[in-house]
Amino acid sequence: MKISELAELLNGKIENLNEDVEIKKAKSLKTADKESVSFLADKKLLSEAVSSQAGAIIVDKFYPEINTTQIIVKNPKEAFYKVLDILYPDDEVIPSVAKTAIIGKNVKLGKNVIIKDYVVIEENVDIGDNTVIYPFSYIGKNTKIGKNCTIYPHVTIYKNTTIGDRTIIHAGSVIAGDGFGYYQKNGKHQKIKHVGNVVIGKDIEIGANTTIDRAMVDETIVRDGTKIDNLVMLGHNVEVGENTILVSQVGIAGSSKIGKNCILAGQVGVADHITIGDNVIVTAKSGVGKDLPPNNVYGSSLHAIEWKKWKKIMFYIYKLPDIIKKLNPLK
Amino acid sequence: MKISELAELLNGKIENLNEDVEIKKAKSLKTADKESVSFLADKKLLSEAVSSQAGAIIVDKFYPEINTTQIIVKNPKEAFYKVLDILYPDDEVIPSVAKTAIIGKNVKLGKNVIIKDYVVIEENVDIGDNTVIYPFSYIGKNTKIGKNCTIYPHVTIYKNTTIGDRTIIHAGSVIAGDGFGYYQKNGKHQKIKHVGNVVIGKDIEIGANTTIDRAMVDETIVRDGTKIDNLVMLGHNVEVGENTILVSQVGIAGSSKIGKNCILAGQVGVADHITIGDNVIVTAKSGVGKDLPPNNVYGSSLHAIEWKKWKKIMFYIYKLPDIIKKLNPLK
Amino acid sequence: MKISELAELLNGKIENLNEDVEIKKAKSLKTADKESVSFLADKKLLSEAVSSQAGAIIVDKFYPEINTTQIIVKNPKEAFYKVLDILYPDDEVIPSVAKTAIIGKNVKLGKNVIIKDYVVIEENVDIGDNTVIYPFSYIGKNTKIGKNCTIYPHVTIYKNTTIGDRTIIHAGSVIAGDGFGYYQKNGKHQKIKHVGNVVIGKDIEIGANTTIDRAMVDETIVRDGTKIDNLVMLGHNVEVGENTILVSQVGIAGSSKIGKNCILAGQVGVADHITIGDNVIVTAKSGVGKDLPPNNVYGSSLHAIEWKKWKKIMFYIYKLPDIIKKLNPLK
Repeated sequence: MKISELAELLNGKIENLNEDVEIKKAKSLKTADKESVSFLADKKLLSEAVSSQAGAIIVDKFYPEINTTQIIVKNPKEAFYKVLDILYPDDEVIPSVAKTAIIGKNVKLGKNVIIKDYVVIEENVDIGDNTVIYPFSYIGKNTKIGKNCTIYPHVTIYKNTTIGDRTIIHAGSVIAGDGFGYYQKNGKHQKIKHVGNVVIGKDIEIGANTTIDRAMVDETIVRDGTKIDNLVMLGHNVEVGENTILVSQVGIAGSSKIGKNCILAGQVGVADHITIGDNVIVTAKSGVGKDLPPNNVYGSSLHAIEWKKWKKIMFYIYKLPDIIKKLNPLK
Repeated sequence: MKISELAELLNGKIENLNEDVEIKKAKSLKTADKESVSFLADKKLLSEAVSSQAGAIIVDKFYPEINTTQIIVKNPKEAFYKVLDILYPDDEVIPSVAKTAIIGKNVKLGKNVIIKDYVVIEENVDIGDNTVIYPFSYIGKNTKIGKNCTIYPHVTIYKNTTIGDRTIIHAGSVIAGDGFGYYQKNGKHQKIKHVGNVVIGKDIEIGANTTIDRAMVDETIVRDGTKIDNLVMLGHNVEVGENTILVSQVGIAGSSKIGKNCILAGQVGVADHITIGDNVIVTAKSGVGKDLPPNNVYGSSLHAIEWKKWKKIMFYIYKLPDIIKKLNPLK
Repeated sequence: MKISELAELLNGKIENLNEDVEIKKAKSLKTADKESVSFLADKKLLSEAVSSQAGAIIVDKFYPEINTTQIIVKNPKEAFYKVLDILYPDDEVIPSVAKTAIIGKNVKLGKNVIIKDYVVIEENVDIGDNTVIYPFSYIGKNTKIGKNCTIYPHVTIYKNTTIGDRTIIHAGSVIAGDGFGYYQKNGKHQKIKHVGNVVIGKDIEIGANTTIDRAMVDETIVRDGTKIDNLVMLGHNVEVGENTILVSQVGIAGSSKIGKNCILAGQVGVADHITIGDNVIVTAKSGVGKDLPPNNVYGSSLHAIEWKKWKKIMFYIYKLPDIIKKLNPLK
């Protein structure tokens, strides 16, 4: 695709057109070559843009310092994301069910479904149109997967699960394993049978090696549009609202409810039976032990500093009760 | 099963019997319908019980406010767990070894063993009676799995592992991978060969995508009755005592010993060569850097609060040494 | 191998030779028997050495208290690691490609390659000499794996990945899944197509169930000699320098750069777009929110103490701003 064609598709204005070269790649400013398009969204990177070898750079206004061809658009970042979709179309795949796939009784496959090699689908499963299931994925019985879903390799979906349209599950994730629940009897942990299930909505993405446990009774729920990163853990009976972001290594304990449009940053932990309101941001590594009201930013992570300094601070932190006690008479 | 039959099985007394309906489901108070039994264990939920549509509610005493049929028992929670086992019997499975399973030389399969499709078992493996192995699980050579175990899909068990009776391993877990050990030579990390193994006891449950590394020499050990959640990491030569609970995303570094009847809450980290005594609870997100004596509760997690407030606190935390220094002359 | 032969191989001097027994095992001092060799590297373990049943103990000097045969070397630990390699040679494997492996078009297999049962390799993949791929691993198209690599069971490698010689990837790891990136449009998260790839260098070890995401554009890079433990997460466009150690459950967010010869201890989290210099150690559980200059040790983890004491400290930590305010007039 020529620069001029690309600019037209992006509704962009061309400046500095040296040569209307064929653009074949999308790259960062540093790694771009003549066949690449790049973008400048952060002014701090202007010097990188100036020295970039890109065939064209998508910008928000004309930069006289940049000699390269510039495509001027309102939102360079978003335009660049559009370019990624244009320049790198999805691999064409021919609908088919591999001979090595094992399909149980009473399984309904929609139109244009792709079941790749070594997939196991148990009985009474319903898979919607255009859905792709990669090798080594296991779909437990009575499960319903929507249309246009992608299930990457090595996904395990235990029985009775529901997954909405256009949802993507990355490799190694485990959906609807037993919740972690026991009761004590004779000094031993007795397993509580988990007879609930997991309901995953539409337009959800679940990262690699994430685990979402089935409910004891009722449902563990992830609502439409929510995006979950790798190595996240959702306990039994958790509910996550719409359009929420759960970053990598977040853990949410049983029965907690996360609102919609929230962001839980990396390695956040949420205790059990907690309610987090809508539009809440929790900063990375925070531990949430109490309900968090909506529309606010919460956090308690300590940034790493020089170890020697931190040890000194810790020394005083642990002595705070003593220090306060000594200071009291002064007040 | 009629309410009257259920009550008899639970040794419960019936009150308010409106109609001796057939109970088909176990549900929470909110989601229960006429065909469901529910339970009231927490008095805070009394209003939910009053408005519940359940056919019957299991309670610890008669509640005049609740119009629904009540089954009065000593411990409603435990009775409800019993109901889960009664109403939802395990799926019937016919003992069989799938044709697509690949079974190595000298493998001994006990009575009524179920080996599902696409299982690979290497040589000299011994699998006890009634054990079920789900698709895509890999059992390394010289491994011994006890009776009545369940190995869910995608479990990897490296060679020389021992697993006791009635142990459950959920999907995606990796048992006996190499420990993380290197020594320095010529400025590079040289791999230390790990020739030890992993010994998992009886009545253990291991969650999804958990990893338990093999010992360098000797054994990594998990003792009888211990329950391990999803995404937990046990390093080489770790020992975990009996009936201990390791909640999701806990990490225990090499050679540490955890006592029996302990609870390590979610995201706890334990450094290497640490000893934690029996009956210890470590609260969520804590980092354990020193030995912890038995019979106590330990922790250092900071609860998330409003980010602006926390930033202010952090500002002072990091200034503590200076503050203390300035205050000293006062004392 | 007799003690005398072992000593010769280690360039060691024998003392106290009671009997030149055949050594068949390497064990710790406590578990060693007559057929075992052990080692004493930490003087704290001298009493264990004195009471050890080992056939021979590798030591750094002669210990008159120890009656057992002693093999005296410069570095007992390193000598013992050498013994592990000698006494436990790798399993012999016959080069072969299993009939159940599914190999795509235009796949090049090097000499002596071993492809075990139920491996799926997509088209245009290149696998170097002597590389072993275990059951259920999935290799996406256009991927290049070097010589003498080991890919354990259930590894998923998405398309366009490059893996260098002698690299080991443990079970369940996921390489080159889509990065976690979205932009907002009409109040919804729009997926950013990830068209970059992952480049893993030589002599790298990647633990079990670790995830390394593909770049948006350009490359996510792990450089030669770096060792990564289990359940680690590397986000899109992360770069990790040479000979760095990433301990279990570390998470590194998008576009961050970690220097060479670093150690990030267990459960460390690194925010996005951070630069950590060479030769940096970050202590366990630390959160890194700012760039860290090279050649230093950083950290901010709080050690677990008795919960009651910690609750008191937390009470004061959260009141620090008030306390400081009250104290100010005094100064």
